[in-house]
Amino acid sequence: MDDAWTGPTVGECGELVVLDRIVRRLPAGTPLLGPGDDCAVVAAPDGRFVVTTDMMVHGPDFRWAWSSPSDVGWKAAATNLSDVAAMGATPSGLVIALAAPQDTPVAVLESFADGVRAAVEALSPGCGVVGGDLSTSATFTVTVTAFGDLGGRTAVLRSGARAGDVLAVSGELGRAARGLARLFRDGVDEQGEPSRAATVASGADADPDVDRQRRPVPPVADGPVAAAAGATAMLDLSDGLAIDAGRLARASGVTLALDRADDPAVDLDPVALHGGEDHGLLATFPPDVALPGGFRRVGVVVARGDADLVRGGQPVPTTGWDPYADWDGAAG
Amino acid sequence: MDDAWTGPTVGECGELVVLDRIVRRLPAGTPLLGPGDDCAVVAAPDGRFVVTTDMMVHGPDFRWAWSSPSDVGWKAAATNLSDVAAMGATPSGLVIALAAPQDTPVAVLESFADGVRAAVEALSPGCGVVGGDLSTSATFTVTVTAFGDLGGRTAVLRSGARAGDVLAVSGELGRAARGLARLFRDGVDEQGEPSRAATVASGADADPDVDRQRRPVPPVADGPVAAAAGATAMLDLSDGLAIDAGRLARASGVTLALDRADDPAVDLDPVALHGGEDHGLLATFPPDVALPGGFRRVGVVVARGDADLVRGGQPVPTTGWDPYADWDGAAG
Repeated sequence: MDDAWTGPTVGECGELVVLDRIVRRLPAGTPLLGPGDDCAVVAAPDGRFVVTTDMMVHGPDFRWAWSSPSDVGWKAAATNLSDVAAMGATPSGLVIALAAPQDTPVAVLESFADGVRAAVEALSPGCGVVGGDLSTSATFTVTVTAFGDLGGRTAVLRSGARAGDVLAVSGELGRAARGLARLFRDGVDEQGEPSRAATVASGADADPDVDRQRRPVPPVADGPVAAAAGATAMLDLSDGLAIDAGRLARASGVTLALDRADDPAVDLDPVALHGGEDHGLLATFPPDVALPGGFRRVGVVVARGDADLVRGGQPVPTTGWDPYADWDGAAG
Repeated sequence: MDDAWTGPTVGECGELVVLDRIVRRLPAGTPLLGPGDDCAVVAAPDGRFVVTTDMMVHGPDFRWAWSSPSDVGWKAAATNLSDVAAMGATPSGLVIALAAPQDTPVAVLESFADGVRAAVEALSPGCGVVGGDLSTSATFTVTVTAFGDLGGRTAVLRSGARAGDVLAVSGELGRAARGLARLFRDGVDEQGEPSRAATVASGADADPDVDRQRRPVPPVADGPVAAAAGATAMLDLSDGLAIDAGRLARASGVTLALDRADDPAVDLDPVALHGGEDHGLLATFPPDVALPGGFRRVGVVVARGDADLVRGGQPVPTTGWDPYADWDGAAG
């Protein structure tokens, strides 16, 4: 983790100084008009754009003991880029609204901006942050809104899967969940509270799965590639393969049957099935399509039965995390 | 104020129930694809769109003692619609990310949604909420991102004012600030803390200026009207005429000279000059243009001098509120 928790605070520096220090670190992209006016202006060459918005809140969504500000910036950008990709679109811009407590060092916001830039450069080079809003709050909160261009293609919805289609995934499965489990096991103090010292001392800080939890690597480029190849349905794997497969199955009125349980390239162990936050892509393709990009077959689409998702003839549960019902209120 | 602070909480109901109860109350608009997939799809008929994002945080931006959830929904929508109008664009959609504490009654979020719908129907009929995100936080926070269509016109920037242009405003000046001053004077308890009981007992609750502070009425339709009439520069009056005039003057490299101090239709008293949150429009027009819509002349653009803004030959201060430096940390 980088150490940005020192130096002058945003309350001491004021909005204009903070803005100046972070805007220059963000990826500019190529908007028709960037930050500085009442709105940005973004090109939408095919006469439409896709848009998604996602809020990350200190406490339920991240802990400073486990994630650096740069990690939070990376993840806020990456998860939104993944939603754009899941429509078959190419990201065309982001806007970011950020509220930080007044005692937050400006270096924290700079590190956050560095993480955003690193994610955009790695996952969707050429995209940029075209505007934003800086505010103050007792709770560190960031909302990223991302746009994308469909390049003349039809948007790939969750609802288009048909019996006979192939079910495929791109991206890693289960690594982010393994990383989170490691943090909850080894990254806590004697009272079970998130602890940076314990995270470092236990080696969890250097665990590649922990890195994936902090900095997911969605296969953004595979979104438009899948659309061009004829994907019939697609979504972002934010809550885990089983939960998200359930969403696709219900939206399409089909059942999804996993049939590659013993392929070592597609290890569908329980963590891969039920672990969230990898932000891979789940898609269905007509049976005659050669799977494009990083997609691997994991099953088939069959006529709607009693279950959303089955494996070896048995239903697989497709429920999970609810932010309202399940967050325990802790931050740290 | 409506009374939404009772009944089952979001933590008790869970995300899906809450979503279902609020989405149906929001204005749908006419997106190509609405809520329910990874992204919405919005038309951008002229191959571009404008975008703005703004976060409202409990504490620095609103107090529950003074504003109802419906008021907060109205204001969150209205301020973003105003930013779209200030580019000369017509609003084409909103996305809303909202985080509420788990003990927030679901009725609060329903009332919030009602306020959003009322604002959109009043200020930009036909526009809608095309997507969003629901989260949880210790601090009630809402981020609205708004889009707009330029209808083939050039975006009206802050930087286009030229010496000889006429300076004009549309919308009310000073009413929101008068309302806020009334609340800070009469809507507080003996310790000076925001108090709903005091707000009601003092009559402040029924003060039309207080209503404007809670529910600003930006002249959204005047934005595209000004652009079509040839406005050379424009911005949203969020922080007050003087501060925002300073921004326009610096961006355009000109000085603005107020010259209608004694016109009763344009009463530029100190509150009108320095009070924020009315969300009117400040624009400059070539001298031969008949001022369109609700615009009234307040001055002229002159060659850049020592000051951003002058009146009767004297400089007018153009500084103001800084969220990082000036918020006292209180909520209520």
